[in-house]
Amino acid sequence: MFIPIFFILSILFSSTNAADFCVGDLNGPVGPAGYSCKKTVTVNDFVYSGLAATGNTSNLIKAAVTPAFSAQFPGVNGLGISIARLDLAVGGVIPMHTHPGASEVLVVIQGTICAGFISSANKVYFKSLNKGDIMVFPQGLLHFQINAGKTQSLAFVSFSSPDPGLQILDFALFANDLPTDIIEETTFLDAAQIKKLKGVLGGTG
Amino acid sequence: MFIPIFFILSILFSSTNAADFCVGDLNGPVGPAGYSCKKTVTVNDFVYSGLAATGNTSNLIKAAVTPAFSAQFPGVNGLGISIARLDLAVGGVIPMHTHPGASEVLVVIQGTICAGFISSANKVYFKSLNKGDIMVFPQGLLHFQINAGKTQSLAFVSFSSPDPGLQILDFALFANDLPTDIIEETTFLDAAQIKKLKGVLGGTG
Amino acid sequence: MFIPIFFILSILFSSTNAADFCVGDLNGPVGPAGYSCKKTVTVNDFVYSGLAATGNTSNLIKAAVTPAFSAQFPGVNGLGISIARLDLAVGGVIPMHTHPGASEVLVVIQGTICAGFISSANKVYFKSLNKGDIMVFPQGLLHFQINAGKTQSLAFVSFSSPDPGLQILDFALFANDLPTDIIEETTFLDAAQIKKLKGVLGGTG
Amino acid sequence: MFIPIFFILSILFSSTNAADFCVGDLNGPVGPAGYSCKKTVTVNDFVYSGLAATGNTSNLIKAAVTPAFSAQFPGVNGLGISIARLDLAVGGVIPMHTHPGASEVLVVIQGTICAGFISSANKVYFKSLNKGDIMVFPQGLLHFQINAGKTQSLAFVSFSSPDPGLQILDFALFANDLPTDIIEETTFLDAAQIKKLKGVLGGTG
Amino acid sequence: MFIPIFFILSILFSSTNAADFCVGDLNGPVGPAGYSCKKTVTVNDFVYSGLAATGNTSNLIKAAVTPAFSAQFPGVNGLGISIARLDLAVGGVIPMHTHPGASEVLVVIQGTICAGFISSANKVYFKSLNKGDIMVFPQGLLHFQINAGKTQSLAFVSFSSPDPGLQILDFALFANDLPTDIIEETTFLDAAQIKKLKGVLGGTG
Amino acid sequence: MFIPIFFILSILFSSTNAADFCVGDLNGPVGPAGYSCKKTVTVNDFVYSGLAATGNTSNLIKAAVTPAFSAQFPGVNGLGISIARLDLAVGGVIPMHTHPGASEVLVVIQGTICAGFISSANKVYFKSLNKGDIMVFPQGLLHFQINAGKTQSLAFVSFSSPDPGLQILDFALFANDLPTDIIEETTFLDAAQIKKLKGVLGGTG
Repeated sequence: MFIPIFFILSILFSSTNAADFCVGDLNGPVGPAGYSCKKTVTVNDFVYSGLAATGNTSNLIKAAVTPAFSAQFPGVNGLGISIARLDLAVGGVIPMHTHPGASEVLVVIQGTICAGFISSANKVYFKSLNKGDIMVFPQGLLHFQINAGKTQSLAFVSFSSPDPGLQILDFALFANDLPTDIIEETTFLDAAQIKKLKGVLGGTG
Repeated sequence: MFIPIFFILSILFSSTNAADFCVGDLNGPVGPAGYSCKKTVTVNDFVYSGLAATGNTSNLIKAAVTPAFSAQFPGVNGLGISIARLDLAVGGVIPMHTHPGASEVLVVIQGTICAGFISSANKVYFKSLNKGDIMVFPQGLLHFQINAGKTQSLAFVSFSSPDPGLQILDFALFANDLPTDIIEETTFLDAAQIKKLKGVLGGTG
Repeated sequence: MFIPIFFILSILFSSTNAADFCVGDLNGPVGPAGYSCKKTVTVNDFVYSGLAATGNTSNLIKAAVTPAFSAQFPGVNGLGISIARLDLAVGGVIPMHTHPGASEVLVVIQGTICAGFISSANKVYFKSLNKGDIMVFPQGLLHFQINAGKTQSLAFVSFSSPDPGLQILDFALFANDLPTDIIEETTFLDAAQIKKLKGVLGGTG
Repeated sequence: MFIPIFFILSILFSSTNAADFCVGDLNGPVGPAGYSCKKTVTVNDFVYSGLAATGNTSNLIKAAVTPAFSAQFPGVNGLGISIARLDLAVGGVIPMHTHPGASEVLVVIQGTICAGFISSANKVYFKSLNKGDIMVFPQGLLHFQINAGKTQSLAFVSFSSPDPGLQILDFALFANDLPTDIIEETTFLDAAQIKKLKGVLGGTG
Repeated sequence: MFIPIFFILSILFSSTNAADFCVGDLNGPVGPAGYSCKKTVTVNDFVYSGLAATGNTSNLIKAAVTPAFSAQFPGVNGLGISIARLDLAVGGVIPMHTHPGASEVLVVIQGTICAGFISSANKVYFKSLNKGDIMVFPQGLLHFQINAGKTQSLAFVSFSSPDPGLQILDFALFANDLPTDIIEETTFLDAAQIKKLKGVLGGTG
Repeated sequence: MFIPIFFILSILFSSTNAADFCVGDLNGPVGPAGYSCKKTVTVNDFVYSGLAATGNTSNLIKAAVTPAFSAQFPGVNGLGISIARLDLAVGGVIPMHTHPGASEVLVVIQGTICAGFISSANKVYFKSLNKGDIMVFPQGLLHFQINAGKTQSLAFVSFSSPDPGLQILDFALFANDLPTDIIEETTFLDAAQIKKLKGVLGGTG
């Protein structure tokens, strides 16, 4: 009786593996849909411990973003989802930023976080969130998170893409060689302000 | 100088709101892409506190799933993402189930959870997860979560769809009027086993 | 007059081939969207005779599934569709299963088939289908097909993906090394029942 | 013990129905993703017998196409798939046509069919198909089916969309009021040829 | 002979219209995939003359954006594409902005335009474009266009969505009631700079 | 102060590049979603001057199509958009054709163009377009453009795909080796007409 069964199994399942998942092979070719698929996988390809430790918040923004996007956690490659950890020390801020390729849901695990986004119609939506509250940030819109309490805050943020991208406004404007006069013309900021922030963030030009 | 500016604004932004988000109108028509969009929204449409409280685990499975899918949290409608809260008391289990329409990422907030899934090739991937660990469950595959520790466990699970669906195996088989002989034929389970579980779960036939 | 025409042709058509189709190269890299594209194709890449013969139903389930998914029929790679052949001898059953990545349409070619699926709301939809009847099974939901007549039955099933996946419930639970106690906890089945079916289907643990 | 279970059920399943399927309400609003969803469904919404009868081939092309697209079979609405029946009497032809919104897989049930398509690179792929053979036609490309045998032929064709569209070349050119001179200019056909076919197919202008 | 033909026609084409297009009904329900479909359409639903006139550039930015998104040109609803016209007087600037929902291709019709974008990796890509040059701006990234010549410039920009959205950085930050202290914290800009620009752009708080 | 900042940068941005764009590597593997991504890019990968020159219209159709699809302009690979230039001399015609994989928006830059398409319901939509007018052609439908004025015309056409495909009806039918009798059977054209056009367009058989 066993032989016919395994015969069925071998027919039915010989090639269906690719449909289930495509753990990213970080060394293979990359295409518009993501990384190539690893040929052999184990449970460890689907589990990641890189978000377990508190991020280092000893920095300018007193905050840390620890991503588990497809480059850090190749198990999500091709699966339409990823996650990151936000740590905000007292006074910590995740500065104004966008994710060009994904919507985001934030859940507060600890502390109080003032979070908000700005719509295409320039309307501001922001609120103070407590432990257990969730907030959604629609794809591609400017948004921010601020520790609004007296203690360290922790949140997890999930994304509707394995590789959502992350463009932090200040770093985009002031941490590269975009000429000051172009920034002036396209943002109406004063040159002195621009040069001050280039100084802080390492920009040139 | 102000009039030309507002003139620009009115031209540029008069119609772009729909592109940003589509908060679900639970009373309007529903289509394959989700609920119709609410006409007027406030920040409270993007924030939800329904996951803040511990779920009631005084039940058969000693566990609770509290969803923030588009029906509970219409702010995620059309945005490709949703979230839920898992509470597992000591001995608690989220039984074998699938999400027909989404992949899932789980993050352990408290406790220890043994989680796993089974691929189309019938290979089992399971592991004990500690606080801060994450695991991804590819779309549509059978998976489960078991409290593997001596204390209450908490996890948040995110989905790659605002409405991922949820099919719990035992309820699908034993909590409705699917005739016992059809279950026997299609699962090879013994009639006595089927009838026992129909008794527990409220099924008939 | 001919030179200008062929000049147009060479401009217009030099690179459009990729847009039309992407016959899978089973030896090239695989990504989340499917196989890499073969460089040279003939009509035989778009035609497949592997479904012409009756499947071997001399097995436990008295039935056979013969797939033409992208691994067997690389012509469908990237095209959003695939097909399979179901043969059910008298008493034959396609056991309870899901396709994690596709919806399915079945058409009865010969015989009478009792087919059904179970929704996320645990409602059962099943009916006896005659020659020429069609039935649709929404993506990811548990479903089954049973030969309901006195003669051999034949059906073709089409899928909304070139690689729909196939997870047969009993094989997922009982044909691998998933420990009996985990199955007990996550399905409420009795250990004796589990061990009996592991024995039949080749599972261990 | 029963109350807690049903309490779980009501929490888990109260809103997940929309994720499973969206049977089309042909009288409700239609959007880019398809029809609105019917509120109440039965198994009969997922089963269709309209393809069971042989199509009427007593016509010019000695052939019939009987569709089960979302308008005829609203159960496929939103599910990414549909199906149709092709009947070809001796000498029957499904004339050169395209499906603007879907790829197609054909399976020959009876008879012999010569089928083919033409790529963007103007290469022709055609072959004589026998019973049980399948052929895939990539999205949007011109293709045709001809009864190549001495007997009635039957095929089923599946599509990667619930509403694939169908543009038959001759009817598009000659069965409406597109002016003859525009047809001449854009097809290089002679006016006499155009007028002859307008006469046959009911076109004017 | 005519009756059978029209019989075919009525069978084949009775319901395929929805597959072709879905001209937006601006007064019907809106869903995540766009507007509901108008029931009756003419050629004028697919043609739009609103981009024919030069935009009014007598304003602060000496520039104008005239969109033909689905709200202005409902013919593109559901079709994955839209277009807009950019007019830049001498000294004109389209300030730093993003489109949350689409990639963009710009073609210069007249004049010289300095255009650029900033990637998630904070790298700047910018170049001076002449008549006939095209440039692509990937989805969701900050970008800008500046008239780099001595004459009026004209460009057309196409988008990979019928409703791409448009978030102009300065208006998002300074043309609403987002509190100055939140802007300070999330952008590192000085309060004086923020208040100056709120003054220019009409913001409060 | 600088070290912590760059530490943040390296964490945040180390792997997000892939999410932004995927400039096509024309020598790497190709998949259903497009070309593999180039590893190193400059601004020149996002700019293309190949549409700046007037196309050569000294040919049979007195017209030229100059594409900037992903094969010519790899910067659009994976970004859902592409563009082409149409030049029509006096009397010029872009013959009846389809794009199997994209919808199209045309904008008239110079001259007068009579443009039209035919729906699945065989209804014709055509109109004379002047400078600045735009028209949308839904995916996969037959359409054409004719210079309707006394001067050279110029238009740009954008597509909802980086690789829309292009099937010109006459070249598909008459510029290859599709046998004359198959063309007769599937188009109802007379053999003499077919042979005449095969002669003009270089077809055989």
